[in-house]
Amino acid sequence: MTGGGLPAILIEPVVRAALVEDLGRAGDITTDAVVPPDARLACAIVARQPGIMAGIEVARLAFHLLDPTLAIAVQASDGAAVSPGQPVMRIDGAARALLDGERTALNFLCHLSGVASATQGLVQAVEGTRARIICTRKTTPGLRALEKYAVRAGGGVNHRFGLDDGILIKDNHIAVAGGVAAAIRRARRAAGHMVKIEVEVDRLDQLDEVLREGVDAVLLDNMDPDTLARAVARVNGCAVTEASGRVTLKSVRAIAETGVDLISAGWITHSAPALDFGLDAEGM
Amino acid sequence: MTGGGLPAILIEPVVRAALVEDLGRAGDITTDAVVPPDARLACAIVARQPGIMAGIEVARLAFHLLDPTLAIAVQASDGAAVSPGQPVMRIDGAARALLDGERTALNFLCHLSGVASATQGLVQAVEGTRARIICTRKTTPGLRALEKYAVRAGGGVNHRFGLDDGILIKDNHIAVAGGVAAAIRRARRAAGHMVKIEVEVDRLDQLDEVLREGVDAVLLDNMDPDTLARAVARVNGCAVTEASGRVTLKSVRAIAETGVDLISAGWITHSAPALDFGLDAEGM
Amino acid sequence: MTGGGLPAILIEPVVRAALVEDLGRAGDITTDAVVPPDARLACAIVARQPGIMAGIEVARLAFHLLDPTLAIAVQASDGAAVSPGQPVMRIDGAARALLDGERTALNFLCHLSGVASATQGLVQAVEGTRARIICTRKTTPGLRALEKYAVRAGGGVNHRFGLDDGILIKDNHIAVAGGVAAAIRRARRAAGHMVKIEVEVDRLDQLDEVLREGVDAVLLDNMDPDTLARAVARVNGCAVTEASGRVTLKSVRAIAETGVDLISAGWITHSAPALDFGLDAEGM
Amino acid sequence: MTGGGLPAILIEPVVRAALVEDLGRAGDITTDAVVPPDARLACAIVARQPGIMAGIEVARLAFHLLDPTLAIAVQASDGAAVSPGQPVMRIDGAARALLDGERTALNFLCHLSGVASATQGLVQAVEGTRARIICTRKTTPGLRALEKYAVRAGGGVNHRFGLDDGILIKDNHIAVAGGVAAAIRRARRAAGHMVKIEVEVDRLDQLDEVLREGVDAVLLDNMDPDTLARAVARVNGCAVTEASGRVTLKSVRAIAETGVDLISAGWITHSAPALDFGLDAEGM
Amino acid sequence: MTGGGLPAILIEPVVRAALVEDLGRAGDITTDAVVPPDARLACAIVARQPGIMAGIEVARLAFHLLDPTLAIAVQASDGAAVSPGQPVMRIDGAARALLDGERTALNFLCHLSGVASATQGLVQAVEGTRARIICTRKTTPGLRALEKYAVRAGGGVNHRFGLDDGILIKDNHIAVAGGVAAAIRRARRAAGHMVKIEVEVDRLDQLDEVLREGVDAVLLDNMDPDTLARAVARVNGCAVTEASGRVTLKSVRAIAETGVDLISAGWITHSAPALDFGLDAEGM
Amino acid sequence: MTGGGLPAILIEPVVRAALVEDLGRAGDITTDAVVPPDARLACAIVARQPGIMAGIEVARLAFHLLDPTLAIAVQASDGAAVSPGQPVMRIDGAARALLDGERTALNFLCHLSGVASATQGLVQAVEGTRARIICTRKTTPGLRALEKYAVRAGGGVNHRFGLDDGILIKDNHIAVAGGVAAAIRRARRAAGHMVKIEVEVDRLDQLDEVLREGVDAVLLDNMDPDTLARAVARVNGCAVTEASGRVTLKSVRAIAETGVDLISAGWITHSAPALDFGLDAEGM
Repeated sequence: MTGGGLPAILIEPVVRAALVEDLGRAGDITTDAVVPPDARLACAIVARQPGIMAGIEVARLAFHLLDPTLAIAVQASDGAAVSPGQPVMRIDGAARALLDGERTALNFLCHLSGVASATQGLVQAVEGTRARIICTRKTTPGLRALEKYAVRAGGGVNHRFGLDDGILIKDNHIAVAGGVAAAIRRARRAAGHMVKIEVEVDRLDQLDEVLREGVDAVLLDNMDPDTLARAVARVNGCAVTEASGRVTLKSVRAIAETGVDLISAGWITHSAPALDFGLDAEGM
Repeated sequence: MTGGGLPAILIEPVVRAALVEDLGRAGDITTDAVVPPDARLACAIVARQPGIMAGIEVARLAFHLLDPTLAIAVQASDGAAVSPGQPVMRIDGAARALLDGERTALNFLCHLSGVASATQGLVQAVEGTRARIICTRKTTPGLRALEKYAVRAGGGVNHRFGLDDGILIKDNHIAVAGGVAAAIRRARRAAGHMVKIEVEVDRLDQLDEVLREGVDAVLLDNMDPDTLARAVARVNGCAVTEASGRVTLKSVRAIAETGVDLISAGWITHSAPALDFGLDAEGM
Repeated sequence: MTGGGLPAILIEPVVRAALVEDLGRAGDITTDAVVPPDARLACAIVARQPGIMAGIEVARLAFHLLDPTLAIAVQASDGAAVSPGQPVMRIDGAARALLDGERTALNFLCHLSGVASATQGLVQAVEGTRARIICTRKTTPGLRALEKYAVRAGGGVNHRFGLDDGILIKDNHIAVAGGVAAAIRRARRAAGHMVKIEVEVDRLDQLDEVLREGVDAVLLDNMDPDTLARAVARVNGCAVTEASGRVTLKSVRAIAETGVDLISAGWITHSAPALDFGLDAEGM
Repeated sequence: MTGGGLPAILIEPVVRAALVEDLGRAGDITTDAVVPPDARLACAIVARQPGIMAGIEVARLAFHLLDPTLAIAVQASDGAAVSPGQPVMRIDGAARALLDGERTALNFLCHLSGVASATQGLVQAVEGTRARIICTRKTTPGLRALEKYAVRAGGGVNHRFGLDDGILIKDNHIAVAGGVAAAIRRARRAAGHMVKIEVEVDRLDQLDEVLREGVDAVLLDNMDPDTLARAVARVNGCAVTEASGRVTLKSVRAIAETGVDLISAGWITHSAPALDFGLDAEGM
Repeated sequence: MTGGGLPAILIEPVVRAALVEDLGRAGDITTDAVVPPDARLACAIVARQPGIMAGIEVARLAFHLLDPTLAIAVQASDGAAVSPGQPVMRIDGAARALLDGERTALNFLCHLSGVASATQGLVQAVEGTRARIICTRKTTPGLRALEKYAVRAGGGVNHRFGLDDGILIKDNHIAVAGGVAAAIRRARRAAGHMVKIEVEVDRLDQLDEVLREGVDAVLLDNMDPDTLARAVARVNGCAVTEASGRVTLKSVRAIAETGVDLISAGWITHSAPALDFGLDAEGM
Repeated sequence: MTGGGLPAILIEPVVRAALVEDLGRAGDITTDAVVPPDARLACAIVARQPGIMAGIEVARLAFHLLDPTLAIAVQASDGAAVSPGQPVMRIDGAARALLDGERTALNFLCHLSGVASATQGLVQAVEGTRARIICTRKTTPGLRALEKYAVRAGGGVNHRFGLDDGILIKDNHIAVAGGVAAAIRRARRAAGHMVKIEVEVDRLDQLDEVLREGVDAVLLDNMDPDTLARAVARVNGCAVTEASGRVTLKSVRAIAETGVDLISAGWITHSAPALDFGLDAEGM
């Protein structure tokens, strides 16, 4: 167990694969050559930038999988703000294992903390409005569950995890189905009772038909704040409203003030810059 | 075979895993509900931003693995500049397979093109100097080979692929080994004849000892341009020189003009924003 | 693609594993010893019992994975009623491959058709009522997606595919949370907008609190028809109603006539007897 | 080690896959939302029906893989009769891990105990005769080794585990080989000295040729008790005799009284109803 | 299908893993750098030593997995004698794929042909006697099924494929069981009717007790020819006799002339020198 | 961690696969039948031949993976000379686990010690010269990293681990590239700064062109000692010199005395006879 929403049994294969990706066939030839097998090291993972941390248990698991005898003390929690110089984990033990795992542990921690920090930026920008920040399926291949976890750590909420856990009818579906009403009816007929239905709407005039059919949510795509506000008014609480498209740190407040329920941003998972952490030796 | 440096046998497991990650247990429940099994669609993947493309064969493989009967025509090559509105691949066939694969194909293409574009930005900034742009091991877990490929597509060169294909002695190794000379000697004793040795140097005064021992390359870390220039002069061609640290689009030219051989930047793999591509239906 | 809701990329690993489970390390030593490599066979898979078929594409895939040169003609569709003696697939080609794959193909087809037939039995028994038959997570380990598919082929509807695609608050959750209202509120706070919430209710007196909090569905567990009818009346359309517990071919009609929306039965996946199919040689 | 014939190294991948199948990408979203991370629970797995238990170590492994700190006490052994209300395992520890693993653990235990109970039913019905009850290759894909284990737990004996550990010449083999004598001779030539040969016989008149060639066992398929008795008499101890076809709890005694050595039944693995077990909370 | 006893579905994972082991993360960097993507090559795999070939389909599969468009013509069969200079396979197509697969294909072919040739050496040495040459479980980890196949190609016969397909009671079993009779009785009680029982015997005086209990085979371990002959006489056809220990090309004839049925040699799998094959370019 | 250059995370999958290969589906049916579950055994792995040991940690891991409660004491180190009768590991614990793991542990230990011993034979034969013994990519599929490790244990040095960690231009590359100079230039352009370039040279007259271009190493293939000596003289320290072809225990000294830096031999990995170890029971 690594904590809520991140069971070790799900993330261990990802971490193991990443370690093997870095170790290759021959292992860490630098460390094997230079560091005696019995050398010990005490290190700290230290934040180098301010931001929101996510993935500390993933980093811990990377070291643990390499050497279960390493003493690891986690000193900050996912979701917490970190400041430059702040140690978030201390590791003490065989120098070889420590150096073997350093890069993999940091790659996870920096990437996931980057996602959490980007999310938190948007969350803070909309504070005081009803809008919540949500992610999309525009995630890095192989890391979706981890990135969705990082979004939660950053104060965001998750949209669908995949094509199978919710119905989201988009423009191409509507085109093939021959109209939005036909698409919604087919979806309702096929959907189990635990499955929600959301429909993408690009123009105001599409909204009435959608609302007539009745759906759980409407995705208002690429609308300017004025149009958005009118759409929200027209929906009038009959469905959850989600705004998407051109969501930036600058634009998000105006979008939120339209009264929309959710604002989704792909870039918090696919384009968030990594948050810098490093490994500092503290003693031998 | 997908082309140079990206054998299908290596990337197929990554693409397959990404498709399964998106399809989950139940598959695409929206498309299954809304799109008839015999519906056909003709689509194009279209660039939405200017940049350098990478990963078109990965995108092709995503569709092909879902449905080998899809007709796929690749219309631009990795490494080429793309402009907004430019179609880079046309796909024609079963609408269901096409919609099932859309997001996975785009996630790879956008991410890898983002890496290639970031690399190309640095490459252009140093044009006319001797410096080449190289990547690091700060890559996204699970995607190292693909990101290294994207760096090459963007005009960069690859550093080590992992801990096992080159010796890079860093500060922690030196500390544990009890000095840089001891570390280099141990490394040389252990290294096979196809293995190169690089040593990290943080201050000018460490350089002489390194050069005395003789190494293939020196990693000049976090030095300002003046110090870098003095380091390059002191190395005087006796080793390949690599500069790293605080490499940005703004700073890179000054770094290159110190005469350094290589400039490495972690952010082109870990923090490059995705390059936007979309799937446009062209007909049914 | 194998058809709606059963993408080949998801089921191929399961079929491949089943073939390897049967072939072991040495392969089919009987066939290798007795059947010449160039012998050919024409066979039909034939139903031996009346029922509803499911899994014909899985059976086809088993033969195809062993030998892509086999000529396979599918002659009946999943969801169709089959009668004893009816051929549902013809296969023509290398006798060795055909005999190697026979048992694995039949094991899938018989098991999944058994699930579909059991489902259909309940579906027919409630015909004319509003009740739909749904499955549970009481599935055979490793076969959940296939069994859920078979439930659909039999005319049923799917409940959750796993712990991650819907919130179902049961008695143990309520006990730990310290009450049903607390549990529902926590769930609503954590749930994304595409996630529905269902709560298990064992006694009528629990229902009001649940309805006050507002949920998408209530699971009315182990109630007799009278109590069920009163529960349905009290819910009065404010939530989807699901009945579970002691659902048999005999009892299901009375349960359906209470006006409940859904009736869930674990035994259609965990205890459905296989539907018998066999492989008949038709010529050499 | 989980005990005789069920090494943990073989079953761990099956249990791990089943847990992942249930947890999906996001894990148990109900428990994560509703149950605090530090909540503890004491539970018992309790039989709800009388029958023969099998798979208790598999259930234990499911919980252990999720959380090695759970305290688990096994209180009944595979092969033992259980009665309604009898606790067979107590688990004490983190409530989240316990609730995450509940369904997977029970799915294995109920399914395997169902197989053991069905087997035991036949075993008791033939008590006092020389006949032993054996299983077939008509098993659930992916679970063969576990189901064969459950058959043993129920007092039965295993037939072949796959196509590679014994030669069983059936009607299709004989047809392709051009006669039973030719088939047997080819089999004997190819077989290693540790491989036994069994031949399927559908009619009495085929028996003499088989016995002339000499085999280890004859499979007397679909014969009525009178014909079976004559077949057994004609074999007269020169080969092991196995009866198969239409074996039910009602018919099995008459079959056994023909003096046959073995009676094989596919339904004990492919159609045995699950034996009901549940998880009861005992305290917090 | 690759032919009798070597189904492609079983060996493909082994071949795929070997290709990936050689290609590493970056693929064939020499070929990618030096050979243009459109260069074509015609090559032949040519024997460099006389011997018995095995594994030609494995070699074919290696090339086919890398590039299904390569034209491959197999020109000699497993089990055939090859002579220096003899081409056994011609491959024509993309030069890159051909060079990428060369080493992996040859590594399989050379290793398996080495096993077949070593086996054939022993087989020829005992020609005219009743003795057959068999292999053991002393195989190379990961390659057992392939090496067992190569033994058959060399004219040998297979012993058990693993711990699960035959009972072989050795000295340690007997010691723990408290005597050979006890061990045999326990084995007989547990064994299914398709399982044979063999017992290791180190001294003549142990033989009578074994024969009294009745077993399918006796393993006469490390006996000199005189003792072996007496053992064979004493067994007198009541069990298959297997001689093992110190079996060399020189000693095997004398062992065979004792009248023993089987002679097992571990070295034909664990210590057979590879048979040399090379890849010769024939044109571009 | 298993020690330098052999991280457990890399070898565990190989060892696990080998155990599963031996246990098959049903596990060790002999031991399960004959040995009581609570029987204990104390054993030693004992060398039966003189040689150099390699793989003791792999053997340890085999037992540990089967049963982590076994008490295992390693009594000799990889790279050490062992003599007949010398115990190298003691294992004490459950008799079943011990007997289940015996063959797999020994298969690894015997094979890898065989490689180490063969290597050491060549190393001793060239003692006093500058030549070091190196291995090739002619390894056993699936075992490359382990065999390379064994070469190091035997005193040898590793050549490339695969196609991706060094450029080695061979005759076929040169032919396709249209000459050695063209090939080298293309290689240099493509190579990262951590990648070395070696070129195969079959005749003296090719050497000048290679040296003119400048490479890190030349592979002098199949030259007699006189030619070799002239080649070494002509290289004159401008590149590392590697001799290959017809390297035997007899010929290697003469080759070494030509002054060559490296002598590579494929047979130390592909044809080294196993070094015999056995498992002796020491008590119960």
